[in-house]
Amino acid sequence: MDRREALKLAVTGTLGAVSGGSMAAPRAVSAAATVERWGVHEIVLHGSMAGNPFVDVEVAAEYTQGVRTVRVAGFYDGDGVYRVRWMPDEPGVWRWVSRSAEKELNGAHGEFECVAPTEGNHGPVGVTERFHFRYADGTRYFPFGTTCYAWVFESERLQEMTLANLKRVGFNKVRMCVMPKTFDAGEPERHPFPMVAGKLDFTRFDPEFFRHFEQRIADLGKLGAEADVILFHPYGKPWGYDQMPQEVNERYLRYVIARLGSLRNVWWSLANEYDLLKTWTMEEWDHLFRVVQEADVAGHLRSIHHSGPMYDYAKPWVTHASLQVYDFDHVPEWKKAWGKPVVFDEVMYEGNLARRWGNLTGEELTRRFWLVVTAGAYCTHGEVIARKGAKDGLSADGAVLLGESPERIAFLRKLVYEDAIGMEQYEDAYYRSAGKKGELYLYYFDFHRPASYVFPLPEGVTFRGELIDPWAMTVLALPGTFTGKSDIELSGRPYQAVRFRKV
Amino acid sequence: MDRREALKLAVTGTLGAVSGGSMAAPRAVSAAATVERWGVHEIVLHGSMAGNPFVDVEVAAEYTQGVRTVRVAGFYDGDGVYRVRWMPDEPGVWRWVSRSAEKELNGAHGEFECVAPTEGNHGPVGVTERFHFRYADGTRYFPFGTTCYAWVFESERLQEMTLANLKRVGFNKVRMCVMPKTFDAGEPERHPFPMVAGKLDFTRFDPEFFRHFEQRIADLGKLGAEADVILFHPYGKPWGYDQMPQEVNERYLRYVIARLGSLRNVWWSLANEYDLLKTWTMEEWDHLFRVVQEADVAGHLRSIHHSGPMYDYAKPWVTHASLQVYDFDHVPEWKKAWGKPVVFDEVMYEGNLARRWGNLTGEELTRRFWLVVTAGAYCTHGEVIARKGAKDGLSADGAVLLGESPERIAFLRKLVYEDAIGMEQYEDAYYRSAGKKGELYLYYFDFHRPASYVFPLPEGVTFRGELIDPWAMTVLALPGTFTGKSDIELSGRPYQAVRFRKV
Repeated sequence: MDRREALKLAVTGTLGAVSGGSMAAPRAVSAAATVERWGVHEIVLHGSMAGNPFVDVEVAAEYTQGVRTVRVAGFYDGDGVYRVRWMPDEPGVWRWVSRSAEKELNGAHGEFECVAPTEGNHGPVGVTERFHFRYADGTRYFPFGTTCYAWVFESERLQEMTLANLKRVGFNKVRMCVMPKTFDAGEPERHPFPMVAGKLDFTRFDPEFFRHFEQRIADLGKLGAEADVILFHPYGKPWGYDQMPQEVNERYLRYVIARLGSLRNVWWSLANEYDLLKTWTMEEWDHLFRVVQEADVAGHLRSIHHSGPMYDYAKPWVTHASLQVYDFDHVPEWKKAWGKPVVFDEVMYEGNLARRWGNLTGEELTRRFWLVVTAGAYCTHGEVIARKGAKDGLSADGAVLLGESPERIAFLRKLVYEDAIGMEQYEDAYYRSAGKKGELYLYYFDFHRPASYVFPLPEGVTFRGELIDPWAMTVLALPGTFTGKSDIELSGRPYQAVRFRKV
Repeated sequence: MDRREALKLAVTGTLGAVSGGSMAAPRAVSAAATVERWGVHEIVLHGSMAGNPFVDVEVAAEYTQGVRTVRVAGFYDGDGVYRVRWMPDEPGVWRWVSRSAEKELNGAHGEFECVAPTEGNHGPVGVTERFHFRYADGTRYFPFGTTCYAWVFESERLQEMTLANLKRVGFNKVRMCVMPKTFDAGEPERHPFPMVAGKLDFTRFDPEFFRHFEQRIADLGKLGAEADVILFHPYGKPWGYDQMPQEVNERYLRYVIARLGSLRNVWWSLANEYDLLKTWTMEEWDHLFRVVQEADVAGHLRSIHHSGPMYDYAKPWVTHASLQVYDFDHVPEWKKAWGKPVVFDEVMYEGNLARRWGNLTGEELTRRFWLVVTAGAYCTHGEVIARKGAKDGLSADGAVLLGESPERIAFLRKLVYEDAIGMEQYEDAYYRSAGKKGELYLYYFDFHRPASYVFPLPEGVTFRGELIDPWAMTVLALPGTFTGKSDIELSGRPYQAVRFRKV
């Protein structure tokens, strides 16, 4: 094993296994006798470099505990090195054995103990209460994400700045692309596929690119952020990303999943603006979705993001909706139709671009977050503030975060986490509000500014009330307690909120 | 003729005819030998007071010029006085003869000359260029209206204040109800029907009420405002207005039209929020519409206003749509569907009430006007600002106009009248804009705030450009001229506008 290649996956805490000699029958030795739950177990095997191992060689491992066996596909990492990575999801001793048609990759075996997770490791995020999210250990998770589509293709300086800014503001989900986008900064240093004589070789992958990509996902994990990994997008035409044959698309998905699927903070976004890939049929998208579903033994969250026509989020392989819509009034209908969490992954960007989607004020984007959250859904931030002489001011590609909305979004996130309740919109409410009956009522008055309002709180339950200014980020506790119909004088200013919490 | 009853119809300039003795065959003498075009010609006849003349007696007049004869229904005005009123629409000599089954009302005759209109009399408003309005003399009219639903039922002081404020701000259309609304100020002094022992007598009318009502329409005419007369509404339940039999509804319509139809600044709004009259069938509404269409020989504008479900504005007796919708993006579709002007007669009110519809900021209502106008449609203002100790602060019932939007709406009206072009929305435009190709481009950026934008002006035409701030009410002329694609630096603030006018 080339030590320089060793992955420093900070989210894992421990690193996988190492193999013995490469030409004989394999001897694989697990370097770690223990792996924490939802960490990464890695098996390293040495095999042939002949031909094109990315296409010609298949390798996998079977992990067994009691009557349960999980078969995990591995991948070729270049230089004769083959790896299998898995995120163990149950404590206890697991035995493993490698499987391949290649003799030198077949039959390696070993065992390890899956132990309790270290602090801060809550496992992967999944769906709970039908419309909300939680980590595997039951801890609630409320996405307040941002978009850094191409940040891994930016300069190291900007990548570090992105991480520093994400840490400062605390976004807990980052949408990021595996493939580069066309942009002015020129050709990216590396692609997921190797560049040969100015053309991408779609029959191979670039392990160096992926090692860096994995590192960045791990870096996000250290910040407590989920990586919403965008697998396809329509912005790669100059390199032919929109013209890959379906067989290449599928091989690419399996490779990405074999490499990244063991990282607990990964989500799969099958595409950004899938419908802008005009020649791709719905059958092809459905098929690719099923490939992801089948290949990803960890069962990470899966969705797809649209520009115009929505994908049918009711399809069984979709775990949640990932919308680009600016109408926040239909969330209850969509929830009924799809039975899944609804995430608004684009609601336009704070910025100053000439494009319609890229010049919201901080006030307007803050307003949209409040509208979405009080509709019982989740929202994603983005920033595109162009500055003269600066080529890197677009958080959509790397988070510089000059805007005024991020701290307001952080304020809203803080409020949501205080109760840690998956809120549902009160559909029969006169003013927009969400919460949990008898426990929580979060009103958002949007452009309305009643001088006072009779809040129809339930009888027989005692609440405390707070006047909340989403822009000034103030919470003013109202004196006394409330029960039943409660007439409360308001500020008369628009874009205000009121919260009632059960005493 | 009782001289005290003489109508002082300021919009007419001249007053109609007087009759002779009441018991013999009629001798009617036109007091005025001339009536201005679109003024009022009135025939006064004396007849029987026996029984219930409102129901029992029909009277009409036939006006003839050359081969054209117009038959106009008259009405009973109480105290044995019968009147026929007509708005002559063609210059020249008109002969007239009265018609009735009652001998003393039949066969009166006379003639008058219809002469050129006096200054400021442009005739009634009609539709032009399919989606816009003009007066009968061809002068363009662009509605910038307000709502004073119940102003004629308020105190004289508030009625005068309403007129003074309308004059100050310059709204040119006023939506007003014939029937009173339920409101806190107590029982109105008069109803369109006489109150007998605490109950309205729906078999008669109250001429005194109507004389006052007509005066108020005339007062609006003096200000250059159209009276959008609302014939039915759902806010009169305590008095039984929602339970009148269809035969009463129809008689009421014919009476109102006979009295008011000769006033050139009248529009008919069949109802406000018609769909809140839950037991009325669509067939009944259609029938009432046809009654108005048939009875009103002047052919005033006709529409109906909804709360929830829209009336089908494509129906042939509707002249324009009168919407209560807060979605301003579908105007082009609606225009295609209906082929008529689109007026947003309620877009919520500037105010501070607890009700959702009554607490917009001035900024938000101003924004809505701009959105509507740059969609190629028209918009109506309303204000409901409640003040402690004041019972008359609601412009929806009488225009005190404390709000911040009226002067901004007046600013927009001024801009629209400067070009006097019926604008159509540029449906293929990237940012919302309206105008007339090659002549006028009015952009409204709403919440967008691009730092700059390349305006796709047509090649080969020279324009001057202006930066417009709808809230500050400033127009900043851009230096030089523009043709073709023109990159212009903008203020970076939201809710701004830009206008290009052909040199």
